[in-house]
Amino acid sequence: MTDIDSSVSPPAALAERDDAITIDELRLATRNHGMPLEVLDLDVTPPGLHYVLVHYDIPLVDPATWTLEVDGHVDTPLSLTAADLDTLPAASARVTLECAGNGRARTSPRPLSQPWLDEAVGTASWSGVRLDAILERAGVLPGAVDVVFTGADHGVERGVEQDYQRALSVEEIDRGEAFLATSMNGVPLPPQHGAPLRLVVPGWYGMAHVKWLTRITVLDHAFDGFQNATAYRIKTDPDDPGVPVTRIEPRALIRPPGFPDFQTRTRVVDAGPVTLSGRAWSGHAPIERVEVSTDDGTTWSDAEVEPAGTDPYAWRRWTARWDAEPGRTVLRVRATDASGRSQPLEQQWNRQAMANSHAQAVPVLVRG
Amino acid sequence: MTDIDSSVSPPAALAERDDAITIDELRLATRNHGMPLEVLDLDVTPPGLHYVLVHYDIPLVDPATWTLEVDGHVDTPLSLTAADLDTLPAASARVTLECAGNGRARTSPRPLSQPWLDEAVGTASWSGVRLDAILERAGVLPGAVDVVFTGADHGVERGVEQDYQRALSVEEIDRGEAFLATSMNGVPLPPQHGAPLRLVVPGWYGMAHVKWLTRITVLDHAFDGFQNATAYRIKTDPDDPGVPVTRIEPRALIRPPGFPDFQTRTRVVDAGPVTLSGRAWSGHAPIERVEVSTDDGTTWSDAEVEPAGTDPYAWRRWTARWDAEPGRTVLRVRATDASGRSQPLEQQWNRQAMANSHAQAVPVLVRG
Repeated sequence: MTDIDSSVSPPAALAERDDAITIDELRLATRNHGMPLEVLDLDVTPPGLHYVLVHYDIPLVDPATWTLEVDGHVDTPLSLTAADLDTLPAASARVTLECAGNGRARTSPRPLSQPWLDEAVGTASWSGVRLDAILERAGVLPGAVDVVFTGADHGVERGVEQDYQRALSVEEIDRGEAFLATSMNGVPLPPQHGAPLRLVVPGWYGMAHVKWLTRITVLDHAFDGFQNATAYRIKTDPDDPGVPVTRIEPRALIRPPGFPDFQTRTRVVDAGPVTLSGRAWSGHAPIERVEVSTDDGTTWSDAEVEPAGTDPYAWRRWTARWDAEPGRTVLRVRATDASGRSQPLEQQWNRQAMANSHAQAVPVLVRG
Repeated sequence: MTDIDSSVSPPAALAERDDAITIDELRLATRNHGMPLEVLDLDVTPPGLHYVLVHYDIPLVDPATWTLEVDGHVDTPLSLTAADLDTLPAASARVTLECAGNGRARTSPRPLSQPWLDEAVGTASWSGVRLDAILERAGVLPGAVDVVFTGADHGVERGVEQDYQRALSVEEIDRGEAFLATSMNGVPLPPQHGAPLRLVVPGWYGMAHVKWLTRITVLDHAFDGFQNATAYRIKTDPDDPGVPVTRIEPRALIRPPGFPDFQTRTRVVDAGPVTLSGRAWSGHAPIERVEVSTDDGTTWSDAEVEPAGTDPYAWRRWTARWDAEPGRTVLRVRATDASGRSQPLEQQWNRQAMANSHAQAVPVLVRG
């Protein structure tokens, strides 16, 4: 058996130059895609506009032969078909998903991975079945610690061949928020969002929402798989075990005003009164405050934030008035949630650029 | 009025280094997206997997207030609503669309623009109404030369502020192939594919298929707008007027076999018999031959190509057998159409990297 060596599957590394995106990063960027920020105008993001991050290939799963296995530290292992899912109690939520690597390409030095700027986000209405109902039917035994979710996507990453797997703790599942989705925005899941079944963990970064689910395994010990123990960690150096990436840090984004230049995406705005708008969200606690700066962070004023709706993990719209005067400027925005978490204005660097929520900057030319 | 100067909207330029993608290019790559090549398994590409290239912002058009104006060198200018479209004769086709800039990021020196590798393609079933029926109703006057299609998307590009506009000649329209689409794959157009109405010009590169149509204008002279006269041209230097980009050059793509590494996307395949497959298409003439090389172009053998279907401008599936032996290799594929056009193995460089159809290369590790 030929080893999958580091020429095929290299170790984690940092970019040599801030302004030189590598071909490896480009290969990821042409496959995966962000949400074009003008789509912040929509409450619910359609497929093709909602961000997508896929580690390996998108598996095209045949729902007619697909099964979900439930095994491990349970009383009664299960093998559920798509028809079996229809007999289970329903669950649904409108949820803002964000990639844990959002903002990575704006950090310095930049870790080599999917090079997101600000756009790895989207909000969808997910619906499906209750996770606790499935676990109750299988009968989780005393002493359960972690629950591992396995997807049908297979690949190699930093030399480790794997099916994509992530675990959640039994405590987290007992909060009763995580569920299994069979549909997105009222229609069956599209292939790139995990058809026929994905996990949804409201409030958590995207890596937790395992797509193309094939297996749920209850463990009586902590899971030490690659995506929990190595990949999605906040580390300061390669040997640092780090701390796990979990819930989404607060973030606000501006719907870029005016119109763009094709190449630089700089915005052109006519002078005069402008209504700025955007969305804000947090996986920790409700958004409490959104502040906007129209002078690149020198002064700030409060935006108006729409009241919280029925879905605590869906973004909320904000608006602010701006009297735009001719010249160049940079718009910025930052959110604060009820837990006291806020967005830093500068990067908080970590080795894999995870959960880096430093405030967006939108360069604008105001013309008189 | 403040000029939109070259710091906001720079002139066309070439990259300094082949291996250093700029931040401007990355901004485009995180918005626009290609088709993940494993989706070559599907005959019809769903939204979110079909490639998307949007020059400016995606306009969110309200179909309730939207109208299509038909004016210019006509007897009776029209203003059509969405309901009016329902009274017109229907048209539909399954069509492979490809961006004229596909392959750009594999050319050297690389023009700074959307940095596609091989993936700017997709095949959808488009349906809507006949274009000739609308033009007949308006009554095109004698002496008509070009027909201009205007979209709702507005921006600035190389210093030229514009609504996106492209013209087709009256001769091209008289072929009877171009039509106006209101739906994609059986459902209303998604926002990013031109809702509520787009032009479809089967066989042509994507720039011709104007999205978010608001106006059709008949001219008694040749159109000299930016996207026809400047942008989509095959030029050898910046001052060369060049020749227009029109129909799609033949291309075949391989569905990458095995599984990928996350970062390098190198494929890992187990030794033994492998069925390679993919798709091939041309906008000029039916595909006549697909050849595959499993030794980086040293030797070639013919693939089996599925018979032509009823849609002359939809891709066709091909398959080939490969006895994979352990080690590193590069797979390549090239298509030839009935007009005698074929894919070069090396780039045929031009100043904007348009219509560059040089053959794909898929690096593979075969393990024993």
